[in-house]
Formats: sequence, C-alpha cells, structure tokens
Amino acid sequence: MDFAERAKELVSQMTLAEKMSQMRYDAPAIERLGIPAYNWWNECLHGVARAGAATVFPQAIAMAASFDEELLFEVARTISDEARAKYNEYRKFGYTEIYQGLTFWSPNINIFRDPRWGRGHETYGEDPYLTAVLGTAFVRGLQGDDPVYRKLDATLKHFAVHSGPEGLRHSFDAHVSKKDLYETYLWAFRYCVRHAAPAAVMGAYNRVEGEPCCASKTLLENILRGEMEFKGYVVSDCGAICDINRNHRVTENEAESAALAVKNGCDLNCGSAYQYLQAAAAQGLIGEEEITRAVERLMEARLRLGLFAEDCPFDSVPYSVVECPEHLALSRRMAEESIVLLKNDGILPFGKDVRSVAVIGPNAADIPILLGNYNGTPSKTVTLLEGIQQSGVTVYYAKGCDIAEDSVGEWAEHPLHEALLAARRSDAVILCMGLNPSMEGEEGDAYNGARSGDKADLELPLSQKRLLEAVLQEGKPTVFVNVSGSAVNLSRADEACGAVVQCFYPGAEGGAALADILFGRVSPSGRLPVTFYRSADDLPGFEDYSMRGRTYRYFEGEALYPFGHGLSYVPIEYLSCTVEREAVPAGEAQRVSVRLRNAGEMDAREAVLLFIRDRNERGVCLPQRRLAGFKKVEIPAGGEKEVWISIPPDLMAYTDEDGRERLEEGTYEVETGAAAGGISLKASFRLV
Amino acid sequence: MDFAERAKELVSQMTLAEKMSQMRYDAPAIERLGIPAYNWWNECLHGVARAGAATVFPQAIAMAASFDEELLFEVARTISDEARAKYNEYRKFGYTEIYQGLTFWSPNINIFRDPRWGRGHETYGEDPYLTAVLGTAFVRGLQGDDPVYRKLDATLKHFAVHSGPEGLRHSFDAHVSKKDLYETYLWAFRYCVRHAAPAAVMGAYNRVEGEPCCASKTLLENILRGEMEFKGYVVSDCGAICDINRNHRVTENEAESAALAVKNGCDLNCGSAYQYLQAAAAQGLIGEEEITRAVERLMEARLRLGLFAEDCPFDSVPYSVVECPEHLALSRRMAEESIVLLKNDGILPFGKDVRSVAVIGPNAADIPILLGNYNGTPSKTVTLLEGIQQSGVTVYYAKGCDIAEDSVGEWAEHPLHEALLAARRSDAVILCMGLNPSMEGEEGDAYNGARSGDKADLELPLSQKRLLEAVLQEGKPTVFVNVSGSAVNLSRADEACGAVVQCFYPGAEGGAALADILFGRVSPSGRLPVTFYRSADDLPGFEDYSMRGRTYRYFEGEALYPFGHGLSYVPIEYLSCTVEREAVPAGEAQRVSVRLRNAGEMDAREAVLLFIRDRNERGVCLPQRRLAGFKKVEIPAGGEKEVWISIPPDLMAYTDEDGRERLEEGTYEVETGAAAGGISLKASFRLV
Repeated sequence: MDFAERAKELVSQMTLAEKMSQMRYDAPAIERLGIPAYNWWNECLHGVARAGAATVFPQAIAMAASFDEELLFEVARTISDEARAKYNEYRKFGYTEIYQGLTFWSPNINIFRDPRWGRGHETYGEDPYLTAVLGTAFVRGLQGDDPVYRKLDATLKHFAVHSGPEGLRHSFDAHVSKKDLYETYLWAFRYCVRHAAPAAVMGAYNRVEGEPCCASKTLLENILRGEMEFKGYVVSDCGAICDINRNHRVTENEAESAALAVKNGCDLNCGSAYQYLQAAAAQGLIGEEEITRAVERLMEARLRLGLFAEDCPFDSVPYSVVECPEHLALSRRMAEESIVLLKNDGILPFGKDVRSVAVIGPNAADIPILLGNYNGTPSKTVTLLEGIQQSGVTVYYAKGCDIAEDSVGEWAEHPLHEALLAARRSDAVILCMGLNPSMEGEEGDAYNGARSGDKADLELPLSQKRLLEAVLQEGKPTVFVNVSGSAVNLSRADEACGAVVQCFYPGAEGGAALADILFGRVSPSGRLPVTFYRSADDLPGFEDYSMRGRTYRYFEGEALYPFGHGLSYVPIEYLSCTVEREAVPAGEAQRVSVRLRNAGEMDAREAVLLFIRDRNERGVCLPQRRLAGFKKVEIPAGGEKEVWISIPPDLMAYTDEDGRERLEEGTYEVETGAAAGGISLKASFRLV
Repeated sequence: MDFAERAKELVSQMTLAEKMSQMRYDAPAIERLGIPAYNWWNECLHGVARAGAATVFPQAIAMAASFDEELLFEVARTISDEARAKYNEYRKFGYTEIYQGLTFWSPNINIFRDPRWGRGHETYGEDPYLTAVLGTAFVRGLQGDDPVYRKLDATLKHFAVHSGPEGLRHSFDAHVSKKDLYETYLWAFRYCVRHAAPAAVMGAYNRVEGEPCCASKTLLENILRGEMEFKGYVVSDCGAICDINRNHRVTENEAESAALAVKNGCDLNCGSAYQYLQAAAAQGLIGEEEITRAVERLMEARLRLGLFAEDCPFDSVPYSVVECPEHLALSRRMAEESIVLLKNDGILPFGKDVRSVAVIGPNAADIPILLGNYNGTPSKTVTLLEGIQQSGVTVYYAKGCDIAEDSVGEWAEHPLHEALLAARRSDAVILCMGLNPSMEGEEGDAYNGARSGDKADLELPLSQKRLLEAVLQEGKPTVFVNVSGSAVNLSRADEACGAVVQCFYPGAEGGAALADILFGRVSPSGRLPVTFYRSADDLPGFEDYSMRGRTYRYFEGEALYPFGHGLSYVPIEYLSCTVEREAVPAGEAQRVSVRLRNAGEMDAREAVLLFIRDRNERGVCLPQRRLAGFKKVEIPAGGEKEVWISIPPDLMAYTDEDGRERLEEGTYEVETGAAAGGISLKASFRLV
C-alpha cells in the first residue's frame, strides 16, 4: 500500500475536528490513532537554522555567487544529514516542538528583482534560470534519493512574486503583467516543481492582482496544481491567512479567510487562522471533502518522511555529523567559491612583500555578518579579522567607525584616528566594510525599523564613506572588502582602491575563506548573481513590479558591475565557443562546447557562464540576454578544459504578453567569456 | 625652575578668557603661548579604554578578587606603557582629541556598598582597606616613578560617597553619618592620597548632606585639600556642574554653578558649564585669583607629564607594546588569579575521565562579558567557550537560553532541548550563566533602562533559572560558572551543582583563564572582594547610605559566600599565626607572621587574608571585623611559606560618631585561614 493510500486510510478514521487540527503547523497528537504531535515549522536556508549548533554555510545569495550547482547539492545533502541527526536525537526523547522536525521551509526562490529588498539575500539572485537550477539542486539535496522515504521535505517559497517592500507585505497588492509573471516570477517555481518534485510550496503574504497568494485560485489551483502539476502540499506564510481579512480586507473574518484558503488549496496553516475552520464549516463556508483532501496530502507527507516507520534508513544518522570537520570544510569551500573579486589592479593576492596589514572597518570583527539570517548557531566562527590574523602576517586591527552613522557625541570614542595610524604602519590596508543582517532583513527582525528591513538606497553608510576617504588619504595599497547580501554602490571603492572584493554573508568559516582568497591560497571564482548598480535612482520605483529596467535582462543603464562579473587571479583564456548543431528543432536542447585554458601558475576554478540572445523580432520586449547555462570547473595551472553546456528548449522560448512560452524559429546567439575581458566569444544557431 | 613655578609663569601670560578656556576638559590651543590643544578625558579602568585596540585586562572587581597588589601594580604599569605608546603615535600626527591624552580618569575607588549598584564592578569591592591598597597600587603603576616626569595622571573617583542609584545620580542627596563617611566612604581616598599622590580627584554627581560634590566646600576644601592634604587638581564628573542648578537646584543657573565649583576647588570641568565662567566673572561671582589658582594646577600637571618637554623619557615608548604577547600573558595571569572557586565537591579540576563536556549557557560564547565596561577593543578575544574548546576535550555547545527572559514567542527558537541533549551525551556539564555588562552598568549606557543600569535584585534571570533546573534533571556532574560584576544569589547552584565558579568580567583572555582553572592547569586563587548575599531583601534599602547591615563588616545575616571566600584545588594548611609583639604602642604597626603549607601535589597561589577584630567597648558600633592585611603568595607543591603581614595603625583605630579616628588602648584579635575551613587561626595583642 503506497503512502497516498495509507494516508487516505488514516485520515478516514479521523473526526472532522481531528482533521482540522492536523492542518495547523503545530499539529497536536491524535493518541487514539497513534499519531504523535508534530510541528511542521523548520528552517534550513543555509544550514539547519534556529535549532542550535549546526554547520552554518554561506547565505543563499553567497552560494548563488559560487555558480556551483554540484557544490550546492552537496551542501544541501550535508544539511539533510545534520537535520536528520537532530531529529533523531530530539525524537529519542519525545520532543516535537518547533524547529525539531523534518519539514523545512527552504529554499527561498523569489527573484531578487530590486536591491532594496531586505530579504533578497535569502534568494539565489536576480536570474530565473540560475535560481531554478540552484533551487532544484538544493531541493534534491535536501529530499534525498531513497527509493521509499523522503529524507526531508523542502518547501519552495514564497509563491509568488513576493519581493518587498517588507513594510507593506501584509497588505501589498503586486501588479504584474502576465509576461513578467511567467517569464520572471514563476519561472524558477515551475522549473523546480518539474525537476525536483518539492514536497511543498509556501504561499506569499502579498496579493497578486487582487488575490491573496495563500488563497489564490489563480496561483494555487490554476497555475501551481494545474499548469505546473504540483503534487505536494501548500503551506501559508506565517500569519498570512489572518492577513486576508485583517490587512488585505478581501474577506470579513478569519473563518472566511480560512475557508477561502483551504478551498483554493492551502493545506497547512502557519499561524492560527485555521482554528476558525470549525466555525467556517458550521457556517457552510467549507465542506469536509476539502478538509479531507488537505489532510490526506499532509499525512502522506508525514508517512513519506518515515515518521511512523520502523525501517527508515535515515533513523541511523548519528548526532556526530553535526558540525563535523567534513561539514566545516565544505562550508569553507563554499565560502571560498562565493567570494567575488570585483576589481584587482594586481594588489591581490598579497605577496611576500606584504608583511603587515591594517584590518580596518566595522565588519572585520563581527560575527553576525558571517551568519546572515535564518541561521544556526555555530560552535565556532572565524571572523574576517581572525581569518587574516591566522595568515601569518602582522595585523593591526582598528574598527575605524561604527557600522552606520556614528553616534559621534563629543564624549564618544572617535575610532577614526586609530585606523589612520594602523594604515600608516602597515604595508597594505584591508577595509572590511558594508552592511550587516540587521540593516537588511525581514520585517519584524531587522532593526532599521523605518523600512522594516529594506534599504533606502544603495549607499554605504556615511560613517563608512568618511572612513574610506580618510584611509585613502594615507595612500597605502588598499583592498575594499564589501560585506553585504545585496548590491551596494561601490563606485568610489572601485575608483580609488586597488582591489574590491564582494563577500556575501559567508558563513561560520567566512574569515578563513576570505583569507584564503586575499593571501592567494585560493583563486577567487565567484561571480555576481545580481547586478551591482551605481544608484537606486537608476531603477524603477521599489513598488513597481514590472521587470522593465530591472536586472541584467532588462536594465539599460550602465551597471557598475554587471551580473556575472567576477575576476580570477589567473588568466583564464576562453579558446572557443562552438554550438553542436547549426540548426535545432524546436523543443530540443542545444549543446555548446566551451574550451578554456588556465594560462596562470596556480590551479583555479572558473564558473563558465553561457548567455543566450534571441536575435529575432518577436513583437514583444525581449530580454537583452539570458543566462542559458553555467558550469563550475577546476582547471589546473597550465591546463585546458572543454566544457559542454546544454541549453534547454525553455531558454529558446520567449514569453508573450499573455504569459505563454513560445518556441518559434529564428536566430540565437550564445556568448561566453571571462569576466575580466567582458563577454568575449560568440556563436550562433537557428531554431527550426 | 620647578613645574609649579613654570606653570605660574605660563599662566601669568594668559588673559582671563584664556585661563578660563583651559579649565574645559577639551582645552583649546593658545597659539601665541605655544600651548597646544589638549583633551583631558581619557579612560583606563582595566586597560586603555575607548581608544581602539588595547590589552583588555579583567574588570576592576575581578582584579580585586586576585588580592594581588603586586600583580595589579604590574597591570597598571603595563597600561601606562600602552597609553604612552598610543599618545606618542597620536602626537606624531598632531591629534589632540578625546581619549588620545595622558590624563586618565581611573581608578574608581568608591565602595561597593550595595550589590544592586550597576557600576559596582568598576570598583575594588566593598572593603575600604582592600580598595585603598589596590587603588594605591594602580595609581602608582600608572603614574610611574620617574624622578622628573609623571608617566600618566591617575584620577581617583568619584569623590565622594557615590554608589547609586544610577537613575537618581544627577539629583541624589546622600545622607551619611560622619562615622560612615570617614570609616567607609572616605577611607580609601585618604589612603590613596597619602600613599600614591594621585594627580587628580574627580568629584561625584551626587550631593552629600545637601552639598553637590563637585562644588562642596566640605568635601573639596575642608576634607580633600585640608585634612587629606591633596595637592593635585579636581575635575568634575561629566555634566555634573550643570546638575547643580538643573537637577540639584542648589544654584539658579550655570554661571552660579560654575562659580561655586571653582571657588570650592573644582579646577577642571568635564562638560560645558565652565563656558559660563565669563558671565560669572562679569557678575562678580568669581574672582580672577580663583581662576588663576585652578589653571596653575592644571598647567603644572601638563608640564609634569612632559607635554611641553623635549626630554621626556616616555616619548620613546614604541607602539609595538600595544597588545604585545607579554601584555596578553599578563592579562591571562590576572584573569586566572581573579577567578573564584566558590564550591567544589571534587568535580574540579576535570580529570582524564572527563572526555566530553557540554558547554551550556548564554554567556559561553559572548564577547561583551569578557570586556565589562570602560574597556578597550581587543584585537583578539578568547570566549569562555573558545577557551574550553582549546583544552582538548570534545565540546558540545548549546546556548540553552537567552541571557534574560526568553522572548518565547511560539515562533521563537526554543534552545532548551538542545542543551539537554548536549548534557546527555557529555561526561560533564559547564553552565556559563550570569549577567552581562548591559544588565549592570552606568546610567545612559546600560540597556535595562527601567533601572538605569542598576539591578532590581540579586536573582538570576528567569530564563537561566529554568535552564539550570532542566539541566540538573539530567543528573550529570555540573559546574556552574557565574559571570557577573556583582553578587548574585547562587543558592540554588550552590545546593545543586558539583562546583560553583565566580568569573567576574575576565578580560580578553578570559576564556583561556577559565579553561586553565577548569582543567587544572592552574589552581584557583581568587577570593571574593564582596559579600555574596542570598537576597537583596537581607539588605537595607538601596538609597540608605548607612553602613549598618551592609558588607561583611556590618552585615549580621548569613551570607551565602562571605567576603574573602575562595577555594583552592590543593589543601593549603595554615600552620601558625603569630603576632610579633604582644603589646603595640599606639601609632605603631603590628607585624603578623602566618605560616602556610601546600599539602597538595600542584603548585598553587594563595591569597592570605588577615582580619582584625577590636575586642573592646568603644561606645560606638564597631565593625565585626576588618581586613587588616593581605598578601598573595605562590607555594610550590609540598612547600611551606612564612608570610609577614604588617597591620598599619589606622586599622587599630576606630572611628567615633564625629568621624574622628581614635587609637585607644585595648585588646585586638587577628584571624587568618583558608576559605575552605573558614577562619581558622587566631592571635591577639594589646594596644598600649
């Protein structure tokens, strides 16, 4: 008997009230049926989160910058081991509380459409294809490949369109064209549903064209379960059902909201609204068969996780895997691959002539910047400063300024002068600047309360601008390390510093990884998963959900650092780019060969990015180019490598104004090349 | 020409307005006289503070717990090197801002009369003699012994009586009997002035018997400069002069306040009130000769520091001394000596059978608890957790709970279970609990805004009490490490844990020091510089400044751990206690010999404490006993040591109701012994 049938049988024995109770995220036990209590809410965005000690990997946006699908899969697999280990230990003692289960509300595959969005660093960036492929790898890594049991439940969120403003999320109605909806906002969801079969999808807080996402017939029934053929369960974002009447004001009360959500396919409620299902049923707003359908989906998922089984192979994962040396090494490797070298005049990597460095800046000795948000609590961390200190050079540390506007009362410490003194006595300066996760984050979490976690603009705080200018006056070779989860205007650093390094929130081993890069033990190989604009003024309004003028696909201005930018220490020569077939029948994939040579003297990794350009008149506004494939490879010093990248047919299709993907004949150009030289090699083919 | 004469000459060339300008803490340059700008405000309570990187020693209360006068002197000498090094570097580039000078507003020698006072951890505890001797060592260490130049200016603060409540300090009028004033509140000031010749004294915020301290004829003119023969300058606490009219309402306006303060001997103003001296002079409230006298004192101090000299030997102190390995080692040594073993059933030190430990608690991985307040910014820190991790055992870390009441929303992380799991899989548990410097601190600094930094009671926060009880249920050998700057009610830990360790804020190397103790690399040798009461209810009201019922000298209840309590890993046998003379003429010192044996198998340090008891009817309430001497000694395993302690005549005097110290004949008893066995040896003598 398969899990679906067993679920049906189990649910058939429940009373209506019992069924409804199982639709709460904190589902109580039904003792007479041998069903224990279960809390569905668990998090693992970049490591098991909010459950104490765990390996904390780099934040999602950082892992996206690695452009390393296989490594991300390995990270997710590792997370699934730690999650199972923790679950096993909790279960041994009968604990069934929040953050102790197997159903994880990760990954966040929303499109980071605007750099002001505080939660953008939870995502894989601005590109639908990158997000889709990485999301798929992450979900597969979590869910495992056991033929019987699912290792963990992964949950795609937030369905759909969700991307700020945080302060308005409980009442916001996003207006999105059909074309943008399908081409941008739904693209990765569809891809992941098709390729990774995620257990669950989480509805968003906002409305889309008037319909609250967690109760949207259009989104949940027509698109998710209809068009995308999603077979799992849907969970609401936390408190989102109550928002439907309280903030969206689409219904009159919680009973109506709960009924509307369940009818449209939201099976599980994070929050308390589903306690009104009894009232809704009494008023005839919802029927038992709709309840039954939801609970069957939920019980099937619990059965599939082996929660009631004796033979689940994952029950033997031991606690000792948590933060084991292999996992920490993987976190460090991912951090290394996630760091993006944006500019380098040759100052990096530091040579033997650099015997002393001044490490200056508010992010140098900060632990929260390693961890991002939705994080675990590592037992050990390596701050940026500590990583550098462990590299054998003499280090002079000076905080230099507060992270944001100094409270420069006349009685306060003035840390600037010390920084200048440190710079003067050093061979080189490493500025550790940028933002922190309390300056960009989630509504309710972040402290920049005025904007509920969003950023007002792309500027560095004034205190840091002042520090930068003062340090530059010293005239020392200077590396600017920007720590942030989003695009920051780094124009001044780019202009005035010898090197600029982007360090997305890099995880517990972040400082070790940064030092590996700075001192040349590893050549940088990260590339930007988002456009670094010069100013938010170059962008449409934050509340405007049209993609026009946004992301590398539609931005027509000049970015400071484009999507995909990222330098290496070694010259990676792109030798050729060849399409396998001059003409490809519609619906088939194209394969592209890229040959590379590492013309340097150290081994290096390279993220090969392939872009596609639709060279035809389609009667709609087309993306300027689209990422159509990517592959991370390792090339030994002096070595050559041929990389084959397959372009799926989806990426030759264009999306029309009605949101339909159309494959029509025409000419396509593919482009690839090292970031240092811009896009350098091209080839073209025809769709027939 | 000596410094006083040169000062006189220099000041004689100033206009009245120029003179007044030099009485501000941020004194401007007088270019025509070649006098550069100077900012008098600098801090070094336990390391150069608020001036960036520096060796951060244990907080003052911790250093008091070492009962090691010589070590504290060495700490202060070390601080003076780092301070000079920083000054030299700043001066090289012409910087003259706050926290870049040589005049330090440390130490804080107020008496920690009530454990609720938030700033108590800045002091050397509750005993006047301990405070006096340690304050003297600290001042001498800072000021140096150069025959010509003073290395730094030390400032005794806060003169006088000052000890909370923080929230009322700007308007509080302390009512103090003459006896308590001289016997307790002024005692250490007088001793330090006599024995260390501090450059400066800082007036307190509060009033004493109606007179604002910074403008008190009684305190500044009659007592400090009259009776105590203080020869230095007096500085106001910051903003305290404005308090005189705004909050104390003793004067009508700033001009009156400034005039009153200067007339009564407050030479330097931290704050802005002295800008009204011009108005005061115009109104005839103050004369030029009083201004001149103040400025002469200030210029003499600047000259004595060598600020205008070319031949000052301290100008050559190099920057490389800042945080040099020797200084860090000294900080660790002081931290080791400052940790107090309160209870031990034999669980400590951990033996080889302890192969894994659970490190649990909100203070385990916390950096601010290392630093206390008035601190520098260390380039490296060793948290308690890191220290334990570096000891070679397997460590399971779990935060366990938030430092104070959990925000246990239903959606919040519940860290308790992980702690229990960690305990279960470990051979022993180390609970890292207690307070932090934002829970007890200074008005304006601390976040427990309701009490402006003071504590409501002596209880551990509820979150920690819950954690303790839950962990105890696991039945593992458990060490309770209490981190705090003040007495906490540790009754439950004492009753239920195998060992209780008091760790006052231990400095940047604190975790290494704690691990040294826990794993037996060092035998603990700290003793309590304050009484650990069972409850604040055992004490008089916080605003009651009478000493009756306070501190070990007058508390008649049963303390949980008395002043001076502190165990060792080795049996230190007190073999004999002998007075040199049966009869001592009034005004002479008595010498006492104490012979000790280390009957254990590891080298150990021991703080020998000698108490004196006046066995006579004096017609006033006498202290139950008084600390009359102490000496820290090192005794090798199996070794014996004879320690001579000299009891100064002051400690045979009693203070009468008029505040006069009287030496009258009678019988005295001296007592000494290891804390483990209570006071064990006695001897007596007569004053004749």
